[in-house]
Amino acid sequence: MKTGKAFQDFYPDHLAHCYGCGRLNEHGLRLRSFWDGEDSIASFTPRPEHIAVPGYVYGGLIASLIDCHGTGTAAAAAYRHQNRSMAGEPALRFVTAALQVDYLRPTPLGPELDLRGKVEEIGERKVVVAISVSAAGETCARGRVVAVMLADGLMD
Amino acid sequence: MKTGKAFQDFYPDHLAHCYGCGRLNEHGLRLRSFWDGEDSIASFTPRPEHIAVPGYVYGGLIASLIDCHGTGTAAAAAYRHQNRSMAGEPALRFVTAALQVDYLRPTPLGPELDLRGKVEEIGERKVVVAISVSAAGETCARGRVVAVMLADGLMD
Repeated sequence: MKTGKAFQDFYPDHLAHCYGCGRLNEHGLRLRSFWDGEDSIASFTPRPEHIAVPGYVYGGLIASLIDCHGTGTAAAAAYRHQNRSMAGEPALRFVTAALQVDYLRPTPLGPELDLRGKVEEIGERKVVVAISVSAAGETCARGRVVAVMLADGLMD
Repeated sequence: MKTGKAFQDFYPDHLAHCYGCGRLNEHGLRLRSFWDGEDSIASFTPRPEHIAVPGYVYGGLIASLIDCHGTGTAAAAAYRHQNRSMAGEPALRFVTAALQVDYLRPTPLGPELDLRGKVEEIGERKVVVAISVSAAGETCARGRVVAVMLADGLMD
């Protein structure tokens, strides 16, 4: 499933520097998101330094993964909604207006984390994505991202 | 104001590895939080790689700072509520149950970010902290952390 081009691979170069998901950020997490039917999926193996207390992942990483998987899913969903390929122009790129994370249980540090996103709402410039994060098949966190489309003038 | 020992300087060594705020995490952000009257404050200068799109800070960093300033403030507030010094035993340490971030405007990458926390609710094992993040005097994000006290057995 997680083969071929990820959503983030279609971001134009000048929008591909994000610490969480930019393919051009050599220090970043480089999260890559894909469709799995109607859901979006991504995975990430935390680094040893992504610790909270011994044995567990720090919450900020989980929030970051949810954030970037959410904006990536929002972009992909917007293309799909417009019945367009992500390779086409103009490029659609989303940023986060609001992020909510509920930490259901401590997330073990070691196993790969699996993210699964579901598009809850899609409008002209706003997409809402619900995301779960699981480790070894157990859901550790649930989040929600309200993503808004970047205007042509980027952040202006 | 931001002198002397930070809240996080009182965390026992085995709880001082957090990527966001652990003084023993050499790869981490090492956020340090202090009282400023009834409020808690912290500051952090994002690194160049903490970019979202050119010129702006990625949202995951802001979520991480809010998260760690929230749990730090929760711990300090719990000591204060018990009329105890943070140097005393037993150590009180909080983890995040829920995190909410509203991104009000793009956060410029470059200036130091200032965090200000207000304790909204304090109970036996749960503390709620509202936090604002500003850059150059302008509020860029607002967040809320629901923090719960770690049991003696850590995450068990």
